[in-house]
Amino acid sequence: MILHETLPCNTARRQEMLNITSEVNQILLSKLNNYSGILLVSSPHTTAGITVNEAADPSVCADMNEKLREIVPVDRNFTHMEGNSDAHIKTAMIGTSVQLPVVNGKLVLGTWQGIFFCEYDGPRRRKFNITFLGDKD
Amino acid sequence: MILHETLPCNTARRQEMLNITSEVNQILLSKLNNYSGILLVSSPHTTAGITVNEAADPSVCADMNEKLREIVPVDRNFTHMEGNSDAHIKTAMIGTSVQLPVVNGKLVLGTWQGIFFCEYDGPRRRKFNITFLGDKD
Amino acid sequence: MILHETLPCNTARRQEMLNITSEVNQILLSKLNNYSGILLVSSPHTTAGITVNEAADPSVCADMNEKLREIVPVDRNFTHMEGNSDAHIKTAMIGTSVQLPVVNGKLVLGTWQGIFFCEYDGPRRRKFNITFLGDKD
Repeated sequence: MILHETLPCNTARRQEMLNITSEVNQILLSKLNNYSGILLVSSPHTTAGITVNEAADPSVCADMNEKLREIVPVDRNFTHMEGNSDAHIKTAMIGTSVQLPVVNGKLVLGTWQGIFFCEYDGPRRRKFNITFLGDKD
Repeated sequence: MILHETLPCNTARRQEMLNITSEVNQILLSKLNNYSGILLVSSPHTTAGITVNEAADPSVCADMNEKLREIVPVDRNFTHMEGNSDAHIKTAMIGTSVQLPVVNGKLVLGTWQGIFFCEYDGPRRRKFNITFLGDKD
Repeated sequence: MILHETLPCNTARRQEMLNITSEVNQILLSKLNNYSGILLVSSPHTTAGITVNEAADPSVCADMNEKLREIVPVDRNFTHMEGNSDAHIKTAMIGTSVQLPVVNGKLVLGTWQGIFFCEYDGPRRRKFNITFLGDKD
């Protein structure tokens, strides 16, 4: 069983982490009942990534964005003329996809984990891919 | 063929890389003889990740931990009240999962590669997931 | 359907990002017509990673390499006697593999995305693995 879906995701700030866990769970609920396998959530963008981290306290995302801005500031003398090299570098450091186990139609996430779309050059109209590979139990 | 297992993994220090390659190989030996596919090793935690790196000389892990502590120190003025934002950020930078090819029941690892559970907020009782998707050759 | 191939890839500098998208597409064209699933591109090395980022303007890779050299310089007092700890750390930060959806024999890549072999301790004779798992539509 293979499932591939693309979902929209609009960002409101230059750098932002959007919790997309419920959108991903919606797909599982409506289409992957009783299926087990591996779920790939990927970003087709070069200045926006995907990560799994704490979804309970939003200050974790705030701290992460603050620290990333400090490690890779916007205003460096990069050669890329578009002026968003920092966003490309942040994307490479965080990664453009995550893989999660699916057991019996349910995403295997830890208690505090959520899936985040990580915008580094917004605000923009974005999208992300959900790809599932697996079988019925 | 889908296999999903959860294994315990206890850490002894605040920041530590545990070589879990033999635990992963044990599962392959006992349950995935002659199978080929993709193996996902994932952490259900938000302050501990998974990576693949050199398993021969332990000083590589020591250098990596030292450098990560320097890039993301513990004592910054983070807003997350729990005081472990550095651990969340290190986890996002390293990633919470790795994927490896399995060919004929054997993990495709390079000569020097090993799989590591990366603790950034220990010591704690932890666990990690092993998910295999594939078929008999 | 499982496919596993290993391809050579030689690097010319100590730190370098090689665009390997066409080599990957070649495999898809010749062997995965009409197949859909997940493609894993992985590095068997501990001082070279794999990432997905902008393939249009080479200055993005130049900026990324420059910034990574700044964050993890070569000449630190690392304990690993081989003297290439910086390369191990860069590899862990970037990651050793990427996963991409394949739909109907085609790699799902964004407009600006390409797949890169990231050398951090070259020049060397290197290789990378392509593993596909999926089925006919």
